[in-house]
Amino acid sequence: MVTIEQIRHALEAVIDPELGRSIVDLGMVRDLKISGQEVNFTLALTTLACPLQDTLVEEATEAIAKLDDHLVVKIRREEMTEEEKRQIFGQKPGEPEKPLAERLNDIAHVIAVMSGKGGVGKSSVAVQLAITLRRQGKRVGILDADITGPSIPKMFGLKKPPVGSPIGIVPPETTTGIKVMSINLLLENESQAVIWRGPLIAGAIRQFWSEVFWRDLDYLIIDLPPGTSDASLTVMQSIPVSAVLMVTSPQDLAGMIVRKAAYMAQQLNIPIVGLVENMSYVLCPKCGERIEAFGRSKALETALEIGVPLLGRLPLDPHFSELCDAGQVESYPAQAFKEIAAQVVSLMPQGKAKPVFE
Amino acid sequence: MVTIEQIRHALEAVIDPELGRSIVDLGMVRDLKISGQEVNFTLALTTLACPLQDTLVEEATEAIAKLDDHLVVKIRREEMTEEEKRQIFGQKPGEPEKPLAERLNDIAHVIAVMSGKGGVGKSSVAVQLAITLRRQGKRVGILDADITGPSIPKMFGLKKPPVGSPIGIVPPETTTGIKVMSINLLLENESQAVIWRGPLIAGAIRQFWSEVFWRDLDYLIIDLPPGTSDASLTVMQSIPVSAVLMVTSPQDLAGMIVRKAAYMAQQLNIPIVGLVENMSYVLCPKCGERIEAFGRSKALETALEIGVPLLGRLPLDPHFSELCDAGQVESYPAQAFKEIAAQVVSLMPQGKAKPVFE
Repeated sequence: MVTIEQIRHALEAVIDPELGRSIVDLGMVRDLKISGQEVNFTLALTTLACPLQDTLVEEATEAIAKLDDHLVVKIRREEMTEEEKRQIFGQKPGEPEKPLAERLNDIAHVIAVMSGKGGVGKSSVAVQLAITLRRQGKRVGILDADITGPSIPKMFGLKKPPVGSPIGIVPPETTTGIKVMSINLLLENESQAVIWRGPLIAGAIRQFWSEVFWRDLDYLIIDLPPGTSDASLTVMQSIPVSAVLMVTSPQDLAGMIVRKAAYMAQQLNIPIVGLVENMSYVLCPKCGERIEAFGRSKALETALEIGVPLLGRLPLDPHFSELCDAGQVESYPAQAFKEIAAQVVSLMPQGKAKPVFE
Repeated sequence: MVTIEQIRHALEAVIDPELGRSIVDLGMVRDLKISGQEVNFTLALTTLACPLQDTLVEEATEAIAKLDDHLVVKIRREEMTEEEKRQIFGQKPGEPEKPLAERLNDIAHVIAVMSGKGGVGKSSVAVQLAITLRRQGKRVGILDADITGPSIPKMFGLKKPPVGSPIGIVPPETTTGIKVMSINLLLENESQAVIWRGPLIAGAIRQFWSEVFWRDLDYLIIDLPPGTSDASLTVMQSIPVSAVLMVTSPQDLAGMIVRKAAYMAQQLNIPIVGLVENMSYVLCPKCGERIEAFGRSKALETALEIGVPLLGRLPLDPHFSELCDAGQVESYPAQAFKEIAAQVVSLMPQGKAKPVFE
């Protein structure tokens, strides 16, 4: 005869794939009884609309059958109360109610890629950082905070919309497994404009943080839009950003705008891990000449003025643009980025950051 | 003996330099009396703080002295009532009160330079359009609507702050006489960040339109920031934009964002005069090779998709970047831009536009 304890132990091997924990630990197994050959219990689901419930029931039945294949397993399904969900997901009483996803996500480092200036290559840097860290086996996500000019999904050729789950929005993954959330994944047509004023932009960004089920990540990279207005403010005030990675282009004009962005990060007490210069030069494919197409680099001056290290200079590479346009940025070798990524990792502040306003 | 009529006629030659009209026409000459050799009148000023009042008094005295230099001229100064100012500046009763500057400005065409995408060269195109039109003798102004990333003043080496006047803010002029208004002219230090949410951004842009005394302009060029959020919405809804000039870079990625911006203009019924591709190629200074540094151009496809003409393709020219950094953009020959400017002028819609929301 099997015991209740044995059955409970067997059920501990059944993991809720969305929550990443066993159904026993999650308190989903209730009223477990054995009468003769019949095993009865109730499976409490976070929602009866849970798309994975059949899988859970099947796995639970199999786990019990392994103990004794004469047993008849009867599983009743019910939905947890709001109070139960709160208890499971570890919210303390009196605490402001955080969305489920935010409470369950475990994100070690949040890096905001910023410039102030548009078109200097924030997205290029964000993407190269993501693919480089991913190649090292890190768990990486990209939150595209550029709501009116989102370019991340196209660079990865990502068109799958995010799917809903009881926990939150599940972000689609790129070929190499980078999780991506972007407004462009939610639009019917990628050329559709999002003509929103600030509060809606801020709301979307907050949702991408708190209602997206990122799960466990080593690095969440936030691609900020240009400017020091709503989007940047919202990211810096509502999301626990560990550090900012600044991007500039060789022009002093870009440097001036980058200094504005640095001033903003400093005002909000967010550390700047360093400065990357993008589009530093083009190599002539015919004669090999190194052409400074945006003029002589002013990046070192800019870095010194902001008081942060210059982590590296990236060329303007037509091959990179073409891979981005083709949605195949993950095939880019990103050789020049390796050293930059290594420095970012080693210079990251330790421990999790706190958002400015919780 | 001189008559009142002769004196009045003489005073018609005295022009208020701020309003560009005679003090008689403006109703500023009151209680004109002659007793013996003494001419007495009251000069009604829009404000007693008017910095030009001494000049006006002097010119009026001289104009009368020309009639008969034995006359003794006594001028009393007073300030107009609000009601009088309204009458002078032609506001109809019941009409919502528009700022003085907006009522006195006479701007034939407003062109918004837009892209959606950052860093494709909106400011470069706006500036090249301005200098080209200015060289043809047109009266040109640039309204820098990029509040968080303003780059226009630096390109012109313009550091003079705007000055106040009874009519409104008087924008400084560049070496060749282009009027410029930008938030960076109002900051103590050009690297200071403007960390504002949308409503403040929108307020600043509306002020740049309605409280800046642009006077008579053939073209007011508005340099929009990236994105389709607050700044672009405010410009398109509160300013009577005659047409939008779209800017893209060769990447399809840029094209996608530009299509979003075009969609916005179309939603708000603002005509798009055409598309300019910037940063199309770099010429190798050593071997003359034409390098497509951002990959193969997708501008024609983008233009066809939006349904507007492709007005031209501009190279990425290090010399241009260097002149911008040095604040000497007005020395740039802008050869490649001449034909684009000619097309913009010929394709501009006729007549003044109305703002979407007045």
